[in-house]
Amino acid sequence: MKKDAVIGIDIGATFTKFAVIDRMANVLAEGVIPTDHTDDVNEYLKDLTQSVDEKIKKVEDHTVIKGIGIGAPNGNYKNGCIEFAANLKWTHGKVIHLVQLLRKHYPMPIAVTNDANAAALGEMIYGGAKGMKDFILITLGTGLGSGLVANGELLYGHDGFAGEIGHVRAKDNGRVCACGRRGCLETYVSAPGIKRTVFELLAEYIEPSELRGYSFGDLTSEIIYHAATRGDSIALKAFEVTGEILGVKLADAVAHTSPECIFLFGGLAKAGDYILKPTRESFEKSLLKNYQGKIPIVLSSLPEGNVAVLGASALIWQEINIAG
Amino acid sequence: MKKDAVIGIDIGATFTKFAVIDRMANVLAEGVIPTDHTDDVNEYLKDLTQSVDEKIKKVEDHTVIKGIGIGAPNGNYKNGCIEFAANLKWTHGKVIHLVQLLRKHYPMPIAVTNDANAAALGEMIYGGAKGMKDFILITLGTGLGSGLVANGELLYGHDGFAGEIGHVRAKDNGRVCACGRRGCLETYVSAPGIKRTVFELLAEYIEPSELRGYSFGDLTSEIIYHAATRGDSIALKAFEVTGEILGVKLADAVAHTSPECIFLFGGLAKAGDYILKPTRESFEKSLLKNYQGKIPIVLSSLPEGNVAVLGASALIWQEINIAG
Repeated sequence: MKKDAVIGIDIGATFTKFAVIDRMANVLAEGVIPTDHTDDVNEYLKDLTQSVDEKIKKVEDHTVIKGIGIGAPNGNYKNGCIEFAANLKWTHGKVIHLVQLLRKHYPMPIAVTNDANAAALGEMIYGGAKGMKDFILITLGTGLGSGLVANGELLYGHDGFAGEIGHVRAKDNGRVCACGRRGCLETYVSAPGIKRTVFELLAEYIEPSELRGYSFGDLTSEIIYHAATRGDSIALKAFEVTGEILGVKLADAVAHTSPECIFLFGGLAKAGDYILKPTRESFEKSLLKNYQGKIPIVLSSLPEGNVAVLGASALIWQEINIAG
Repeated sequence: MKKDAVIGIDIGATFTKFAVIDRMANVLAEGVIPTDHTDDVNEYLKDLTQSVDEKIKKVEDHTVIKGIGIGAPNGNYKNGCIEFAANLKWTHGKVIHLVQLLRKHYPMPIAVTNDANAAALGEMIYGGAKGMKDFILITLGTGLGSGLVANGELLYGHDGFAGEIGHVRAKDNGRVCACGRRGCLETYVSAPGIKRTVFELLAEYIEPSELRGYSFGDLTSEIIYHAATRGDSIALKAFEVTGEILGVKLADAVAHTSPECIFLFGGLAKAGDYILKPTRESFEKSLLKNYQGKIPIVLSSLPEGNVAVLGASALIWQEINIAG
């Protein structure tokens, strides 16, 4: 008997990864193509479908493909589009009807959502949020993304754009954000955010620091992390400042949706206790009494490599489960 | 044939109002008892049930009571309790198992939630949010309450305490809040909040103002409103400051749940354009581009007098509708 499988696709700025995944999250086949080798969306999709078709052929003797789930920057579940994604070459900052375009080739359920929502679904179906009905997942990478689950469902909101916690205001008249405003949380709490904090601290303090040897262009959150492990005071302070701001805003998020748990995921979360400890301290201090001591902040338990693809596939498994 | 009705109960600090309400929101009978004439919860409930029973008798020939919905300060839908309500005399700041206590007398569906959630349900079933699946209702009274509806359901969160937007941090090291922390939104945006703002403005500026004639104890938000209608510059500025802060925080709330509309309700909302205009301006400026120009902020369309009772009754109608 053939078994059910879905295709998970993770569209990143540089590469697009995909995999054929069964209900137990086993990867039956996988592939990768460049995302940015063309600025023509039709050419990109031709390469993608060709590559996906090759993998489907390999497994079609023993599997039935039930649908395709896609995680993409600014992916909107409600209309199946990628909207205004600044970092995808072939969108030209416009609306791409991704689901519509792909359905011409694949007559099956296809859904798209943004990366953080996909990760939240992955966490709910395969990870530490199994059985939870109310939780928040925060991705800390190039930006700060968030997926909010309430009453057991991902919050999409009216227009599909719920969960933009990266763009709550962390500081009045704060740092300039790529979104065109000032003071957004992700200008402080993200890989580029902590780098900006390091540069402020290098300007403010006079302590020696190994980070004084890096240009803004060369510095990365990994370098800051490694400096912290060696006790570099600027690096340590940068994590403290970052965690302090994140904690306050997570406490505000709790006052909106009252989650059972908050998961941190992505590059900056790999710094572990360096980011977790100050975040938790600031979080507890900032919480309304009702919530204090009740809501753990933990690292995502999803396997690092395939999480985005797994999360994207979860989008379809969830639809199938509801339908079935 | 008898028609279905439910009892809506609105427990306020001073009075408890209740009504027998049919599906069309018609009030078939109503009553009121004092809330604060005793500090013994059993005595209070004895008075309440006695008074409710009298009204039930009046309508029982032509109605069947299907359940009881209650709105109460710090009412928790998930466990049927009133938890740590500072302004109810007979709670002594403790947990009261309200649903459990009432069910001894009324063997039918009974549910409790907080005032703002009840108002949000009322707005959804009887008011301007009919047909909406994602919206936020803000009550501006003694405090700032919020009811969040997402995917067509009220957000209770894991522990029943979702929707505490009154306690997000509006200012670092800001005004002292009754909750024990500093800078909470409701210390700025509420009837007492705008009064505190007036006192700051009276200290900062030297303009003549009719508000200079009031003690802190005597000043009310109504007096500030009437001064504003006469062009008093301090009163006008107070509404501007209040709306400016509210707008920023409503924009943050949108970044969490992406609602279709935001409803304002309660005493301070009666100031109409004095509060709406600066709120909308600040809101639009503070919104992420995706949301700009899409989300109206409007006054609640619920009838002023019975809203809390209607909202409380909606709690039961909703359960009946789901079950049926």
